[in-house]
Amino acid sequence: MLKYLSIKRYTNASDKKLAQSIKNLFGFVPGNIDLFKQALRHSSASRNKTSNERLEFLGDSVLNALIAEYLFKLMPNAEEGELTQSRSRIVSRQNLNKLALKLGLNNLLVTDIKGHLPSSVFGNALEAVVGAVFLDQGYKKTQKIILEKIIKQHLHVKELIQEDTDYKSRLINLYQKKKIPLRFVLLSEKHDGHKKIFHVGVEAEGKIRAEANHPNKRAAEQLAALTVLEKLGEV
Amino acid sequence: MLKYLSIKRYTNASDKKLAQSIKNLFGFVPGNIDLFKQALRHSSASRNKTSNERLEFLGDSVLNALIAEYLFKLMPNAEEGELTQSRSRIVSRQNLNKLALKLGLNNLLVTDIKGHLPSSVFGNALEAVVGAVFLDQGYKKTQKIILEKIIKQHLHVKELIQEDTDYKSRLINLYQKKKIPLRFVLLSEKHDGHKKIFHVGVEAEGKIRAEANHPNKRAAEQLAALTVLEKLGEV
Repeated sequence: MLKYLSIKRYTNASDKKLAQSIKNLFGFVPGNIDLFKQALRHSSASRNKTSNERLEFLGDSVLNALIAEYLFKLMPNAEEGELTQSRSRIVSRQNLNKLALKLGLNNLLVTDIKGHLPSSVFGNALEAVVGAVFLDQGYKKTQKIILEKIIKQHLHVKELIQEDTDYKSRLINLYQKKKIPLRFVLLSEKHDGHKKIFHVGVEAEGKIRAEANHPNKRAAEQLAALTVLEKLGEV
Repeated sequence: MLKYLSIKRYTNASDKKLAQSIKNLFGFVPGNIDLFKQALRHSSASRNKTSNERLEFLGDSVLNALIAEYLFKLMPNAEEGELTQSRSRIVSRQNLNKLALKLGLNNLLVTDIKGHLPSSVFGNALEAVVGAVFLDQGYKKTQKIILEKIIKQHLHVKELIQEDTDYKSRLINLYQKKKIPLRFVLLSEKHDGHKKIFHVGVEAEGKIRAEANHPNKRAAEQLAALTVLEKLGEV
């Protein structure tokens, strides 16, 4: 549960407006509104005040950590490489820029640039806002807020983490559409020194459609699935 | 306060031994010893079990975030570039490898490699251990543990964050040794469009030894200090 602060604590009109925007976006009234003002202050408009760049540094790290934790728990069988790749997709520059616009940070950001702003300005502001949420609410609440209010609402996480790599799911879906039963079978386990090698096959309509070997069983299945997809002209 | 668990909860001898090592290192008895076993299991020894690579992914992110938070608060006037650079020095591969050996993780790591191990294996294990501490104890306690038991005890943080970049401090120290008074003076503040430009000088023995201009006052002082150090042949 987030500690409930009333919006009434803000008497200054522009502070109150910003506090209301933060509440609408994330579901809490800021304890320290200055953090959010700073997060939404582009360096072009910083003059004597601190711009959002320090908070961007902090927010970037916090975002990386909480997405790492989220994926670690979401994908209990994924290897380090898959986790790293999935996170890169989620926190890609492009994704953060898009997310910032979806959240309407472009309407909150204070800049002193005339004309068109590069969209990275908004992605950076989103990172800075994450930094502000973190300092205002702590890690655990930030984790909850970012996942509930940003990631799950605005991103197709399943697509991002499976995109390109989960050939097994793609193959299963394909066969389900065709209503042909398909299964992955373990053909053998060999020992190569201290490592096991899994030899797996993809079976459909009584035939092994493809085989693959790998020390990691899941990877062997992915490789076998990929081979079938290639034969079918699906990749 | 860390929740206190007794070491007696572990009946298995090797679990108890590991729990005792973790307690000696970090001051707490693990709630879930399996996390620490996994963190200390190199991929060469993983066989059917999960190696420490997933935890290394998580721990790397958590370490980055908590060092970011630490430096953000420790260096309230530092710009984003200084923060990034300081963190890179603290969590450098080389530093993590050394820290892991200082903590004695080489005596705890389970590997199946004969002969000499590359030292990165230990740095990676340290990251994995941070991941385990995080899952076992949560962000806030991990922050406290890593700072108190690792960073502050084994690293010269002040040296790492000032190394090379804090020319102002180096110059002040140099003049203090010579017992010559030195001061940084603001010569003027100019306005260039919407940005201020600070014009600062370094004064000693009644003379301005060097001058510099920069939109950031601290950066202008660093530049001026650097110029004096260069004249003195100190850099």
